[in-house]
Amino acid sequence: MIDIRKIRVVPDFPDAGIQFYDITTLLNDANAYEQVFLSLLDTAKQIQPDVIVALESRGYYFGPAIALNLHLPFVPIRKKGKLPFTTYQECYNLEYGQAEIEIHTDAMNKGLSVLLVDDVLATGGTARAACKLLQRFKPRALSTLFLLELKDLHGREQLSGYPVHTLLSV
Amino acid sequence: MIDIRKIRVVPDFPDAGIQFYDITTLLNDANAYEQVFLSLLDTAKQIQPDVIVALESRGYYFGPAIALNLHLPFVPIRKKGKLPFTTYQECYNLEYGQAEIEIHTDAMNKGLSVLLVDDVLATGGTARAACKLLQRFKPRALSTLFLLELKDLHGREQLSGYPVHTLLSV
Repeated sequence: MIDIRKIRVVPDFPDAGIQFYDITTLLNDANAYEQVFLSLLDTAKQIQPDVIVALESRGYYFGPAIALNLHLPFVPIRKKGKLPFTTYQECYNLEYGQAEIEIHTDAMNKGLSVLLVDDVLATGGTARAACKLLQRFKPRALSTLFLLELKDLHGREQLSGYPVHTLLSV
Repeated sequence: MIDIRKIRVVPDFPDAGIQFYDITTLLNDANAYEQVFLSLLDTAKQIQPDVIVALESRGYYFGPAIALNLHLPFVPIRKKGKLPFTTYQECYNLEYGQAEIEIHTDAMNKGLSVLLVDDVLATGGTARAACKLLQRFKPRALSTLFLLELKDLHGREQLSGYPVHTLLSV
């Protein structure tokens, strides 16, 4: 049983009224980190992906280690301007303004089973944009895996059509 | 033997005249990624750290997986404004202007053996700022571990006093 109290709740970050779920306290506890990682790994195994994709930066706390353990390629999605080769881009809305994420155009072959990993499913805006990016590669399957789902924000509705796996929800 | 040709060299990124070592091609090859990871892990084991620290974002391709494998806490250093709790900050110089990195003030106890992980040692500016941040915790030992060292940029000179471990150098 994973203890959600290992995740610190910080009020009013990044903006007033927002409760931020800070997983650095979980990463800082080797037992809790291992337990969460093994649960994510177990779910990832059942999905039988061909490639692991994670979102910058907090998705990288889990995605690369899952790829290494399953002996799969790892593909980073990054914020605009960080990837040096040719990229596909997708915009998504933030509370104020827009942001953009990118993936290398040669990140994977067409027709693969893809697993997208991130830490928290909140409004789902970034994950939805990531799924759009990944559709460029015409995956035969595309699933998502999160450590924590914030149910009140209805992020799952942004990902309709894609299996959504979460370890914890509040 | 690690094949450096798994790392793609992209000319003129992020600015004209700079050769960028793009490790996404290495991460995309499960065998090469595993081989590099196991070599980094082997070095990390010999150092016998109490905690693994990595630099946002590319250090996270290796640092968290090393922490999980050695059953150690993982501590992220992040760019300014990303960590939600109280932080220590350090500035460092970029070619044009400055940047700032942060660590949570409760990231670790005093007196630990700390291993700092990143992908590439270039000018050493970020790694030096990270070492300054980590000195706030009065570590009894502080070592650094990089996948690749770009020798012409003399980053090692910025880290004098700290053991510097690298798998590859060009």
